Amino acid sequence: MSLRVGVIGLGVMGADHARVLQGEVRGAHLAATCDPVGECSHRDPHEMIEVVDAVVIASPDATHADLALACLAAGKPVLCEKPLGATAAEAWRVVEAEVALGRRLVQVGYMRRFDPAYLAMKACDVGEPALLHNIHRNAQAPDWFVGAMPITNSLVHEIDISRWLLDDEITEARVVGQDPMLVTMQTAKGVLISTEVFMNAAYGYHVHAELVGRAGTVAMAQPTRVLTNRAGAHGHGYPMNWVPRFAEAYRAQMNAFVAGARSGSLAGASAWDGYAATAIAEQIIPGLASGLPQTITLPAKPQLYEA
Amino acid sequence: MSLRVGVIGLGVMGADHARVLQGEVRGAHLAATCDPVGECSHRDPHEMIEVVDAVVIASPDATHADLALACLAAGKPVLCEKPLGATAAEAWRVVEAEVALGRRLVQVGYMRRFDPAYLAMKACDVGEPALLHNIHRNAQAPDWFVGAMPITNSLVHEIDISRWLLDDEITEARVVGQDPMLVTMQTAKGVLISTEVFMNAAYGYHVHAELVGRAGTVAMAQPTRVLTNRAGAHGHGYPMNWVPRFAEAYRAQMNAFVAGARSGSLAGASAWDGYAATAIAEQIIPGLASGLPQTITLPAKPQLYEA
Amino acid sequence: MSLRVGVIGLGVMGADHARVLQGEVRGAHLAATCDPVGECSHRDPHEMIEVVDAVVIASPDATHADLALACLAAGKPVLCEKPLGATAAEAWRVVEAEVALGRRLVQVGYMRRFDPAYLAMKACDVGEPALLHNIHRNAQAPDWFVGAMPITNSLVHEIDISRWLLDDEITEARVVGQDPMLVTMQTAKGVLISTEVFMNAAYGYHVHAELVGRAGTVAMAQPTRVLTNRAGAHGHGYPMNWVPRFAEAYRAQMNAFVAGARSGSLAGASAWDGYAATAIAEQIIPGLASGLPQTITLPAKPQLYEA
Amino acid sequence: MSLRVGVIGLGVMGADHARVLQGEVRGAHLAATCDPVGECSHRDPHEMIEVVDAVVIASPDATHADLALACLAAGKPVLCEKPLGATAAEAWRVVEAEVALGRRLVQVGYMRRFDPAYLAMKACDVGEPALLHNIHRNAQAPDWFVGAMPITNSLVHEIDISRWLLDDEITEARVVGQDPMLVTMQTAKGVLISTEVFMNAAYGYHVHAELVGRAGTVAMAQPTRVLTNRAGAHGHGYPMNWVPRFAEAYRAQMNAFVAGARSGSLAGASAWDGYAATAIAEQIIPGLASGLPQTITLPAKPQLYEA
Repeated sequence: MSLRVGVIGLGVMGADHARVLQGEVRGAHLAATCDPVGECSHRDPHEMIEVVDAVVIASPDATHADLALACLAAGKPVLCEKPLGATAAEAWRVVEAEVALGRRLVQVGYMRRFDPAYLAMKACDVGEPALLHNIHRNAQAPDWFVGAMPITNSLVHEIDISRWLLDDEITEARVVGQDPMLVTMQTAKGVLISTEVFMNAAYGYHVHAELVGRAGTVAMAQPTRVLTNRAGAHGHGYPMNWVPRFAEAYRAQMNAFVAGARSGSLAGASAWDGYAATAIAEQIIPGLASGLPQTITLPAKPQLYEA
Repeated sequence: MSLRVGVIGLGVMGADHARVLQGEVRGAHLAATCDPVGECSHRDPHEMIEVVDAVVIASPDATHADLALACLAAGKPVLCEKPLGATAAEAWRVVEAEVALGRRLVQVGYMRRFDPAYLAMKACDVGEPALLHNIHRNAQAPDWFVGAMPITNSLVHEIDISRWLLDDEITEARVVGQDPMLVTMQTAKGVLISTEVFMNAAYGYHVHAELVGRAGTVAMAQPTRVLTNRAGAHGHGYPMNWVPRFAEAYRAQMNAFVAGARSGSLAGASAWDGYAATAIAEQIIPGLASGLPQTITLPAKPQLYEA
Repeated sequence: MSLRVGVIGLGVMGADHARVLQGEVRGAHLAATCDPVGECSHRDPHEMIEVVDAVVIASPDATHADLALACLAAGKPVLCEKPLGATAAEAWRVVEAEVALGRRLVQVGYMRRFDPAYLAMKACDVGEPALLHNIHRNAQAPDWFVGAMPITNSLVHEIDISRWLLDDEITEARVVGQDPMLVTMQTAKGVLISTEVFMNAAYGYHVHAELVGRAGTVAMAQPTRVLTNRAGAHGHGYPMNWVPRFAEAYRAQMNAFVAGARSGSLAGASAWDGYAATAIAEQIIPGLASGLPQTITLPAKPQLYEA
Repeated sequence: MSLRVGVIGLGVMGADHARVLQGEVRGAHLAATCDPVGECSHRDPHEMIEVVDAVVIASPDATHADLALACLAAGKPVLCEKPLGATAAEAWRVVEAEVALGRRLVQVGYMRRFDPAYLAMKACDVGEPALLHNIHRNAQAPDWFVGAMPITNSLVHEIDISRWLLDDEITEARVVGQDPMLVTMQTAKGVLISTEVFMNAAYGYHVHAELVGRAGTVAMAQPTRVLTNRAGAHGHGYPMNWVPRFAEAYRAQMNAFVAGARSGSLAGASAWDGYAATAIAEQIIPGLASGLPQTITLPAKPQLYEA
């Protein structure tokens, strides 16, 4: 039987998840949608959660944790857009509830783990990891993107993908600058992580990474299938945001979520990973003003999340 | 209801089609397999055709046309591996049968039409097409790859993709060399097509194309997601055959076939396209010995295949 | 003592040669210039030849052979812009005169032999050569570029560089199209040469080559030192003509000419090579109309030009 | 008259400078060499300085400042390999002596300022500079490369080229890690500089930079003229050290030195620049142990070094 999936929130990300569910996913279909405005089958997300087999949360960040808790209460698998909570404390409540339940129902939408380029990087042997360079550039920050949001909303992607690529935990971080910002992190195993976050890079949306190992390096190729010669120039275009750049990742993430929901064994970023990304981000923030090294600590990882 | 698909022939291509049907296709499942040896549900392809909703033909080339005719007789949509027939005359029988039936049931497995790089090339505006460069390199030709097979079994891919990319018909061709071989073709609209076919290129399997228009050119980027620095060198590896290179194309082709079979409206290469590729190849062969220009002629395209 | 060099003709090429002589050459200086108009030390090239140690001919093509003969008569080393003669017969007169003199004084300005990319290609081991792809694109042909000039004035560069890269002689050629034009040549050793000449490629001046050997291939990298991300696009710009593209080649060619003139042992393309390029071009021209294979024949190479 | 240049020290760098002087420089020749061992015209550098027009210092670092002072005392233009002094105090003595002399005679061998890739980066408009990424990788550190040498002997190149590229002064720095090491610097104008120094990168010698501006970015292309397909892989090789990578820069630097020595107007890195690089490096060193931000201060730039 095809899995009945409901999407909460029909903004940019929710609409894209709905589109993927309608045409690009095996074993599931879009069964319900919920939004305070516009055309959708439900206004009340809790009612929607009752009538579907699985849930996608793409509503505003402040609602993520409560809705994820509602899914856990209803025993429904849920793919929750990042961040898992508006604060680490909120995200931790989801972890606690899932641990109390004793089985994993929450996948967090750190979609880069499903990007073919990141997967190819992870599969590539360059010897023991020594350093990871991340670049995260947006064409233009929206007006509401202020304060520590480059850390809590953008850098969280690098926090998650670095933890996943390196299979390691972040233990220290320091920040220089504001936009662009350079964040230097260190891991438990002694790997360095250098991340540029530039919210107003002007030329386009561009994510890049290079993993430096003791036997070599592996970096993303330019994100294009074709190269043109036109009007005096050679090259290719950039997308203006993450939806086209990570289209394959979003599709693969949803397919993995559906397969995991059906089999009872979720893949991708767990609630623990979602908590960790937000908790690390919160602990980096004080360094934004001081420029001083910040020690990062996480609670013990609950047994539920051990491989 | 999920489409029940049966695969005839479980060699390299048939096994890959079966794998795709088992895990990467929406709206269908692998319902039956047929091969003279090994584990499969049927030995007789005609019996298998009766019990499925749609058929994939991946048996030896000499059987393609007869099996496609059997599918037409049974009214079953069929994805037939290239070539559609061992000869143009065989392929023409399939066209005639489909025209007599009055509706399209045959899709031919020219999978490059579903490759993201070719699709991006086709979508790119470089002005009026003027010239198309194709490169088709295999690491090593199998022992049985003799005589005109570089034309009938390899160049047919470039014949098909050139017709599709340019939306044009080939009218003349000339051949120089044997391995590598240079084939220069011209189209009805006056576009030139230059194709290198090299069956023993040694270094790997590599397909490349550049479309030259009157306002610019568009070419495939190197087929990789990541670039490495290792052991004194920068770059990436090649696959040793077409299965990994065109994995996305094979998956997309099967999804398109399933969607087309379900909706009654097939996409991809038609029986006419399959006939045309083989008929053009046959007419190029005399030029292999003489080096002289060969005029290519095709019968009028049946109304069934007009867009 | 610094070699006194005089330049005949101060058009685009002559002015650039003069500039190189003034600031980028070791062991020589610009001692005289000759042009029918503008500021220069001489109006009569023959007078100028008398008062310098070496000569650069950059006057109109129709004057090349006669001026080269004058340099031979005066015993002065000469770097003659391509072509060596407006016709093969003219160029042959220069060869005959030099053979009669018994020592090499003529270098022909096929500067690509000094381009770092071509030199790196030649130095690269890809096994026995099998095929050479050449691409020669101009942004826009000048008005006077008509008839067979794509062959006599543009393709001659590929004729020369192919002979040099392959250390082989061209024996057959066929032409398809006009602009772009595809020229397929074969060599005495059985190597294929595919050349696109496109005089109105619109996007810029672009020369590319890939040598396909039986153990691999070597191709030019994109001609740039830096890559930009700007205004939604990644890549680099093209020059609009050959002067910036081959700036290093022109400088190296002049340094080699000066060193050869001083040592009495010229490098680069010889009068024989200059003759051969024009003679081969002339024999290709009939194929421009007919599309039929043209057999190319050259006289025996005089002993003077054996390595 | 050709400038008579003498080279002190015939190790790797001195031998290469001598080679360049013998065959690739306009307006100068190798007139003398000095080394404690082997074939050379002098054992005593001070005697050699007396008999030449200009000097190249390529002896051990500890001798640089004293020899540069000797050249100043003799009024001879000198190209001194980096660093200008083993300590900032030593380098400062050279600055003081040159200021006392009242004219510039010292050029410091920060050759990257003459590298075509860096020059192209500097010429490229990407808007107001915001961030500079530097990567400096050696295949393998020599045994004697210990302690703070990655800063004093390697990072000094990035200190110099960053100051030059940005036309700005470094005011703060922090260090994380040892090998690889990440150094984050800030400039007076608020630009961030991120530098990876990896002395045992294993795969080869590789220098890379990307300048991020507020309107776009510019980065070095891969340092190659040709790309190969061989043995299953696409790409190019790396040199194993800086001599081949910066061959063009070394040649251009020497030509600029000779031209400057002849004209009385030196280009390239000045004694002030040489002092600044070493002084900044020394002030970064305490951060190697502490990981804390280090404030960098330089004395006022003497009037002699204002443009």
